[in-house]
Amino acid sequence: MVNPVSAFPSSAAKEQPPGNGEGRDRHSGPRVDHFTLDNGMKVVVIPDHRAPVVTHMVWYRNGSADDPRGKSGIAHFLEHLMFKGTHVHKQGEFSHVVAELGGQENAFTSYDYTAYFQRVAREHLRTVMEFEADRMTGLTLTDEIVAPERDVVLEERRMRSDTDPASQLDEAMNAALYTHHSYGVPVIGWGHEIETLSRQDALDYYRRFYTPENAILVVAGDVEAPEVELLARETYGKTPARGEAPVRDRPREPQPRAQRLVKLADPKVEQPAFERIYLVPSARTAKKGESEALDVLAHHLGGGQTSLFYRRLVLEQKKAVMAGAYYFADALDDSRFFVFAMPAEGVSLEELESAIDEVLSEAAREGVSAADVARAATRLVADAVYAQDNQASLARWFGAALSNGETVEDVLGWSGRIEAVSVEDVAKAFQWLDRKRAVSGYLLKEEV
Amino acid sequence: MVNPVSAFPSSAAKEQPPGNGEGRDRHSGPRVDHFTLDNGMKVVVIPDHRAPVVTHMVWYRNGSADDPRGKSGIAHFLEHLMFKGTHVHKQGEFSHVVAELGGQENAFTSYDYTAYFQRVAREHLRTVMEFEADRMTGLTLTDEIVAPERDVVLEERRMRSDTDPASQLDEAMNAALYTHHSYGVPVIGWGHEIETLSRQDALDYYRRFYTPENAILVVAGDVEAPEVELLARETYGKTPARGEAPVRDRPREPQPRAQRLVKLADPKVEQPAFERIYLVPSARTAKKGESEALDVLAHHLGGGQTSLFYRRLVLEQKKAVMAGAYYFADALDDSRFFVFAMPAEGVSLEELESAIDEVLSEAAREGVSAADVARAATRLVADAVYAQDNQASLARWFGAALSNGETVEDVLGWSGRIEAVSVEDVAKAFQWLDRKRAVSGYLLKEEV
Repeated sequence: MVNPVSAFPSSAAKEQPPGNGEGRDRHSGPRVDHFTLDNGMKVVVIPDHRAPVVTHMVWYRNGSADDPRGKSGIAHFLEHLMFKGTHVHKQGEFSHVVAELGGQENAFTSYDYTAYFQRVAREHLRTVMEFEADRMTGLTLTDEIVAPERDVVLEERRMRSDTDPASQLDEAMNAALYTHHSYGVPVIGWGHEIETLSRQDALDYYRRFYTPENAILVVAGDVEAPEVELLARETYGKTPARGEAPVRDRPREPQPRAQRLVKLADPKVEQPAFERIYLVPSARTAKKGESEALDVLAHHLGGGQTSLFYRRLVLEQKKAVMAGAYYFADALDDSRFFVFAMPAEGVSLEELESAIDEVLSEAAREGVSAADVARAATRLVADAVYAQDNQASLARWFGAALSNGETVEDVLGWSGRIEAVSVEDVAKAFQWLDRKRAVSGYLLKEEV
Repeated sequence: MVNPVSAFPSSAAKEQPPGNGEGRDRHSGPRVDHFTLDNGMKVVVIPDHRAPVVTHMVWYRNGSADDPRGKSGIAHFLEHLMFKGTHVHKQGEFSHVVAELGGQENAFTSYDYTAYFQRVAREHLRTVMEFEADRMTGLTLTDEIVAPERDVVLEERRMRSDTDPASQLDEAMNAALYTHHSYGVPVIGWGHEIETLSRQDALDYYRRFYTPENAILVVAGDVEAPEVELLARETYGKTPARGEAPVRDRPREPQPRAQRLVKLADPKVEQPAFERIYLVPSARTAKKGESEALDVLAHHLGGGQTSLFYRRLVLEQKKAVMAGAYYFADALDDSRFFVFAMPAEGVSLEELESAIDEVLSEAAREGVSAADVARAATRLVADAVYAQDNQASLARWFGAALSNGETVEDVLGWSGRIEAVSVEDVAKAFQWLDRKRAVSGYLLKEEV
């Protein structure tokens, strides 16, 4: 399974950070314990006793952006192969057991991490931990298994990207934005490179990255930290340390200097669409407060039907049937701020783009009011509180943040930092919405 | 010294292939001998007895496109460092001796190769061969030498690229065209990566690529093959074989699917300019006859003041003050076909681009006549004959072609293949001028 961060709104659900749970102190956030095993594996425990279930996740700090040059898609391909059996368990056995126990499982690969997930009744936690610990080091692969699975991935690519104009534009825009950094390569990889991925490539990658020092265990649910610690020692703890965490070798993007436009025309396009992606700091690469200001700015400009874009472009000017903005804070390296809109009947994408630029200029010139900043912050925090009600979302948010070098404290402090964003911080954040830092995309039915 | 293949017309002098020399048979081409030393080093000898001088070149089959990820600029940086002395000769001694002998020297790095060059009186050939063979393996480097030279390169980059809007657009267009392949990285490297290049990086790269199996010796001038062979054995021949040629690790560009536009505006721009670059096969990646058809098509469309572009856009429509096209056949991987124009006063780049597209559509629709094909072929061959009169150009052409995996016979057969290009071949070549395969560039004085 692949879960590429799509540039297109349909699949752009932002990971929502946790705010605070019902009945808890406003800024306390969820109760979280964390510790490190002797072999270097990090463990995060998020007790949640509302139901007798647990969400068990192992996150590896490697994603598609760590694929070696010429081997794009290997992180995601290995994620598929991780279901193919070990020295101890035969192919499919882990999935079969999870299903028999009435549980759910999944796995996902992103630019910056790869994660494996099960949700089971609390009494089966040890079982899934044993299986997951086993496949951290015990994977076995034969050419007979690798070759057909590669065809599965190629078919997945054909289905998702090669036949979908929006995905093709998405890929082309990312490639134009990230000319040097590997975020410019799709998570699933380029088809002609997936075709060449071998058993040896998968094993080399596996041995390099699937180590205790590179892994984060997140357990949320009807458990407490001492119990998880005991189980973790008896399962993951048995895997010897490698000595050091693997090196993530990623080139940095050069300073962008030219505005770029990518056009894709395809008769299959039903609804033309405009999108722009700006290269901006991520939570990890930003200076203090910058990333939170971008969160607030994105929400003010384009978060929902009360946003500036929606009001101006859809309601007042009637140039768009939909318009919005969002920001991905969650990335190891410099990240992306999206602006998007779909034109009303008879409005060209050029006209729509100009209208968007006018709204942006006006907002930058006039500034965002204290009331607007407060409104955006309140809403972002409230959304996070709501998202946190879901055990898996919460676990996922900690896993993703920790995979990107943030700490548990960084995550818990997010709501407070969002509420501290000032009018001046938001005014400064406009600096990043510079067209030299951006790629615009036109999705069209016909070549123009 | 760096010699990046610039996308801009000023520095776009195409390497001209040799046709046939004065007084020789029409299709015989220059007299060329070639052989391989026991250690795997290739040798090409091009006798030319008109003056008692020789041109001596050593070509290494590695250029900037072979720079390891994150180490862009290392091929070019090493070229600088190759003048810093060896175990036997101190820094600057080689250059000093060449100057004392009344000779000339130079070196250049391109995407696909790095070459070192001297021109001396024939009696000094052994001397330069001894020096050049010595620095193939004997280079010594200290941090005291590496650090200041890195500053020289950074200054070279600042002078050439960072302060010149046309170069910046050139870099941005190449990065947009080659989103995955390393031709998208400038030959000189990205500044932030040059800054990190170390003595160890240079030595690692040197030991990997500077080997007899990876080198080609080209000697043109007042010599014959037996004499060069003897000298080569006594100089380069002493270097032991490494056992195998180094691997060139380059990712392939995915199928392009979206048309791209890059705009760069800078108050320093005096004259706006339009350019388009299409991703097309090189002589090495093309099917039989395709590359030669692209040569003919480029000449027909945009070679000089009798070309279709010049006639239509400059003379008839008066929309441009200059317009042309050219094609780089000479590349190891997929290469580039350029179309460029400078607008007349009051003509926007959008208008100019539309006019160019109309000329292209018309030409594709109506085809290129047999007379036009013959005229272009005749002119290309004649230009090559003229270029071949220059000993250094001739040596350079063989060196470049052999560095890219072509053979001496391929080079000698070029004129014949150009003359064999048919009307149908040219008609088929238009398939490559697909806007999905292209990046357009606008160089502007003011943001529009």
